[in-house]
Amino acid sequence: MLVAVRAVGVCGSDTHYLRHGRIGDYVVREPLVLGHEASGVIVAVGDGVSPDRIGERVSIEPQRPDPTTAESKRGDYHLCPRMEFYATPPIDGAFAEYVTIGADFAHPVPAEVSDEAAALFEPLSVGIAALRKATVAAGDSILIAGAGPIGLMIAQVARASGLARIVVSEPDEQRRRRAQDFGATEVIAPDEETDPVDAFVDASGVAAAVRDGMARVRPGGHVVLVGMGSDTMELPVTLIQNRELVMTGVFRYSNTWPTALALVRTGAVDLDAMVTARFGLDELTDALNADLRPGNIKAIVYPGISQWRAAEQQTGEARR
Amino acid sequence: MLVAVRAVGVCGSDTHYLRHGRIGDYVVREPLVLGHEASGVIVAVGDGVSPDRIGERVSIEPQRPDPTTAESKRGDYHLCPRMEFYATPPIDGAFAEYVTIGADFAHPVPAEVSDEAAALFEPLSVGIAALRKATVAAGDSILIAGAGPIGLMIAQVARASGLARIVVSEPDEQRRRRAQDFGATEVIAPDEETDPVDAFVDASGVAAAVRDGMARVRPGGHVVLVGMGSDTMELPVTLIQNRELVMTGVFRYSNTWPTALALVRTGAVDLDAMVTARFGLDELTDALNADLRPGNIKAIVYPGISQWRAAEQQTGEARR
Amino acid sequence: MLVAVRAVGVCGSDTHYLRHGRIGDYVVREPLVLGHEASGVIVAVGDGVSPDRIGERVSIEPQRPDPTTAESKRGDYHLCPRMEFYATPPIDGAFAEYVTIGADFAHPVPAEVSDEAAALFEPLSVGIAALRKATVAAGDSILIAGAGPIGLMIAQVARASGLARIVVSEPDEQRRRRAQDFGATEVIAPDEETDPVDAFVDASGVAAAVRDGMARVRPGGHVVLVGMGSDTMELPVTLIQNRELVMTGVFRYSNTWPTALALVRTGAVDLDAMVTARFGLDELTDALNADLRPGNIKAIVYPGISQWRAAEQQTGEARR
Amino acid sequence: MLVAVRAVGVCGSDTHYLRHGRIGDYVVREPLVLGHEASGVIVAVGDGVSPDRIGERVSIEPQRPDPTTAESKRGDYHLCPRMEFYATPPIDGAFAEYVTIGADFAHPVPAEVSDEAAALFEPLSVGIAALRKATVAAGDSILIAGAGPIGLMIAQVARASGLARIVVSEPDEQRRRRAQDFGATEVIAPDEETDPVDAFVDASGVAAAVRDGMARVRPGGHVVLVGMGSDTMELPVTLIQNRELVMTGVFRYSNTWPTALALVRTGAVDLDAMVTARFGLDELTDALNADLRPGNIKAIVYPGISQWRAAEQQTGEARR
Repeated sequence: MLVAVRAVGVCGSDTHYLRHGRIGDYVVREPLVLGHEASGVIVAVGDGVSPDRIGERVSIEPQRPDPTTAESKRGDYHLCPRMEFYATPPIDGAFAEYVTIGADFAHPVPAEVSDEAAALFEPLSVGIAALRKATVAAGDSILIAGAGPIGLMIAQVARASGLARIVVSEPDEQRRRRAQDFGATEVIAPDEETDPVDAFVDASGVAAAVRDGMARVRPGGHVVLVGMGSDTMELPVTLIQNRELVMTGVFRYSNTWPTALALVRTGAVDLDAMVTARFGLDELTDALNADLRPGNIKAIVYPGISQWRAAEQQTGEARR
Repeated sequence: MLVAVRAVGVCGSDTHYLRHGRIGDYVVREPLVLGHEASGVIVAVGDGVSPDRIGERVSIEPQRPDPTTAESKRGDYHLCPRMEFYATPPIDGAFAEYVTIGADFAHPVPAEVSDEAAALFEPLSVGIAALRKATVAAGDSILIAGAGPIGLMIAQVARASGLARIVVSEPDEQRRRRAQDFGATEVIAPDEETDPVDAFVDASGVAAAVRDGMARVRPGGHVVLVGMGSDTMELPVTLIQNRELVMTGVFRYSNTWPTALALVRTGAVDLDAMVTARFGLDELTDALNADLRPGNIKAIVYPGISQWRAAEQQTGEARR
Repeated sequence: MLVAVRAVGVCGSDTHYLRHGRIGDYVVREPLVLGHEASGVIVAVGDGVSPDRIGERVSIEPQRPDPTTAESKRGDYHLCPRMEFYATPPIDGAFAEYVTIGADFAHPVPAEVSDEAAALFEPLSVGIAALRKATVAAGDSILIAGAGPIGLMIAQVARASGLARIVVSEPDEQRRRRAQDFGATEVIAPDEETDPVDAFVDASGVAAAVRDGMARVRPGGHVVLVGMGSDTMELPVTLIQNRELVMTGVFRYSNTWPTALALVRTGAVDLDAMVTARFGLDELTDALNADLRPGNIKAIVYPGISQWRAAEQQTGEARR
Repeated sequence: MLVAVRAVGVCGSDTHYLRHGRIGDYVVREPLVLGHEASGVIVAVGDGVSPDRIGERVSIEPQRPDPTTAESKRGDYHLCPRMEFYATPPIDGAFAEYVTIGADFAHPVPAEVSDEAAALFEPLSVGIAALRKATVAAGDSILIAGAGPIGLMIAQVARASGLARIVVSEPDEQRRRRAQDFGATEVIAPDEETDPVDAFVDASGVAAAVRDGMARVRPGGHVVLVGMGSDTMELPVTLIQNRELVMTGVFRYSNTWPTALALVRTGAVDLDAMVTARFGLDELTDALNADLRPGNIKAIVYPGISQWRAAEQQTGEARR
């Protein structure tokens, strides 16, 4: 399907590609359109898709797995080895006026979900995937390292899931305070004490934070690595063994959009409150550097600049 | 440990024993003290327990499993074949001034949890166990049949767990309305339509409700039988097969008290609001028949009558 | 892809359609080609499939799910509501010279796997799916009701999985004896005693056998309904509750072919030994009635009659 | 219960304590009796245990958890923080004529299980625990690094579980050959190629082997760390993330003895074949250094020297 893009979130990985030209084994060798957190409106459909869908507002799940691989068939389509993913070399992304996407990866959103929120279903999906892997339930406790956008998403999903203790560890005091708005029941600086937790999710990518977090998990608890940092880390294997911790990572996500929609519709997760800056497509460099400004959470890029002006006037609360 | 009882909830099973003298294979052959939803204060401890615990306010988990059986050792101590359980023949229960309980089954509660709420950790545990078996997560949907005390507990835990659609099916209109106060996002009469759900929990014990609920579950979804009715039911096995539904039941619960405390402390579950009547120990027959009054949810029995008078004055909102 | 059929197993469901014209809600309203246990050779491929695959010997997984449905995307493609399945009205099956199938549902088999064995990957997949749902492991125990072809498949997979006690319950003495060749460590008539088991799989479809089997499962054990019988059964719900049994059914299967190939290649499962009769395509009525002969396990139909003659001479052991 | 010890296996951890005086945080500060793989005969029982058990031959599960801790109650009693474990400072072990053990941790063994095999239920339990955490099933593939006693135990359990590919990676050629006797379907030197596997279990404790093994696991596969080496290792976190590997460790084991007995009784696992040397209690230093001899797998210590002479004569095959 062809989708006219409405809003696109700026992600740390976009910024990382811009500054370093690569993320791990993914190297930018040719010009690449960045952006993978997108919403839009369907303007054309291909064969086999009902033309009734034209005009539908959609949140884009920016992946094109091959449904015939073993990974896709067992429900882990995000691990499909033939994946084509937006803004991952050599596949172009969504900082553009139009994008194409498979019909089942363009998820309709109702009127009460804003374009910006619909774009942010993507980072919310990372948070949903992280919570699923943390295998916690209502009443349990979690430690999240890092109060960047992904850390805040995870905190929001933890709050929506009824976790009783949501501890956020973060060196920056302003960000610690902010974490409390998005679900943290307790914030600590990395060297502060806290009671043991059922699960730890790293959203910092910092080796010291990972080691510190692991040490705070109860026997049999889960550790989920979401933040991206160096390719290898010195990790406490004796701790993994003695406490039989279960450690895994989040790469991408499968089957999260219905959950994202449910959480946003019911108000359990607030995505609009995470938008802190808006840019036109002609201000893309500024947008990609918005993370350098204090207080930034999520910058949104509008391919049609008049749209974001309108959006900004409507809410009146986003800062540039 | 010896516990001076503070408050005891009246459960449908107490009433059932009173009226019918048996529940399934459990037959009352000798005089039996009923009551298994209890809170109190530790007044004496046995060998091997720290006397520091005397004076502690506790919620009682009313089971004494044998920790050496295969069931206990694999974490299902509630399925222990040598279980001694309050108010299950021939084990006496808690409608009494004093009870004994194992030290690790008397769970300390902080001051902000009322005696009544502490007593109701027991039926709340049934709700927690049911939600665990329903294997649902934030954003998912559930159908609960029956808006009695257990149905409401399940609805409360579903709400605390962030479920997006909590449908309660109940023939009585007043109870349907009440369900909305305790978490239902949608209430239906048994013959009304609703969209498919991820899981169905029966809290009615009515065969027609079970069959109806099963028909509303999506392929691969879970069915949990909590309500007690007839020993056998005519069930749609072709439906279980064609949709590969996963059906199980809740008998009792293991490892729920820490969760119950967390949910009550954070305010995610409100137990005090479920108390609709209070009685002294000398009014036990009235208490056991309180379920016949319209609007009743939970009757609480106070072994020390002056205590409940005090409690009533404090809250001012419970009706007799 | 277009596949020249080599061998097709006769299944009880084929016979049931022939005799009754329906299975549950699936009603034969127009002429229908039966047969869904098939192997063959690829003779032509469509767009997007490498022509290198022409000439490949394949085992056919006889389903065409829609990969875009929620069920397919979460790995349960066999529960896809838009499924097209061989020999399920109105989709034609494999008692034919040629069939078409999706490229990823035609699984290549090596030379050491016979055409007949490759055809029987389908009923073996039912056995694999049943064992997965029984959630047992090496050293555990299982009860299987019914020693028909599916019961024997389940017994074989149980043996391959290292189960220590494989009890087969079956009224017919000859079939009981046969079960011992396919993995049963213990055979009983339905009214005989046996120790409790970790899981029970019904392959009989008989309500009394289901009830009996359930009563023999340990607390917390699993019950899997595979055999098809009446649409509803009177089931012991109090037992499901008191023992917290987990009951589910097997409709079809997902992601079983790689497992089937591994089990057959290593000799852990012997499919060739299950073939007891062979027929040409012109003897189809006889083939579909082969189940009426004592000693029959699996009849194989050969679209090219000369092929089966050759097969029979080669093995010399199959009886007609 | 008081148990007269019959046979005790020598484990690498015994040898490690002897040579280094510590394992991680566990430091030998006072004289310590080593030995934790033991069988024997009950000679006396305490209060609450039936005297009928006197005379029973038992395999000893060498742990004394506190059944009241959260870990014990949820079925992970081996992670109990108040654990007392044989030969772990300051708890004495089984290189002795008599030991005491809880009644439910002395598991009766039938006559067909030898004293030596009964002693080796302990290292077999490590293998069972490792396979459970690897979450593999019949037909799957596994890589095991290290062909020492624990690696061979894991290979045996993998074989008993019907795994189709059991790859053992081991630098020593003699040990590679030996691995084939205990279940390996494929043996490789650490730098050799092999196809991806569903799970990897490290039984070497060598960081390079762990990294190498992780790189060979399919997306979504499991990694289980059993071998003990340095406290920390440089691990490929990007790999954990990109493939969403699930990594955990085995410290000890819960609920494995019934499985061990079932596997040994059915002949699925052969423990007797792992005994390569026998010693009297007065030859303990030699026994603890038996690992230095080429070809050694398991040395057994006999507190009653005449017993092992008898045992040796009986089997005639163990070398000293």
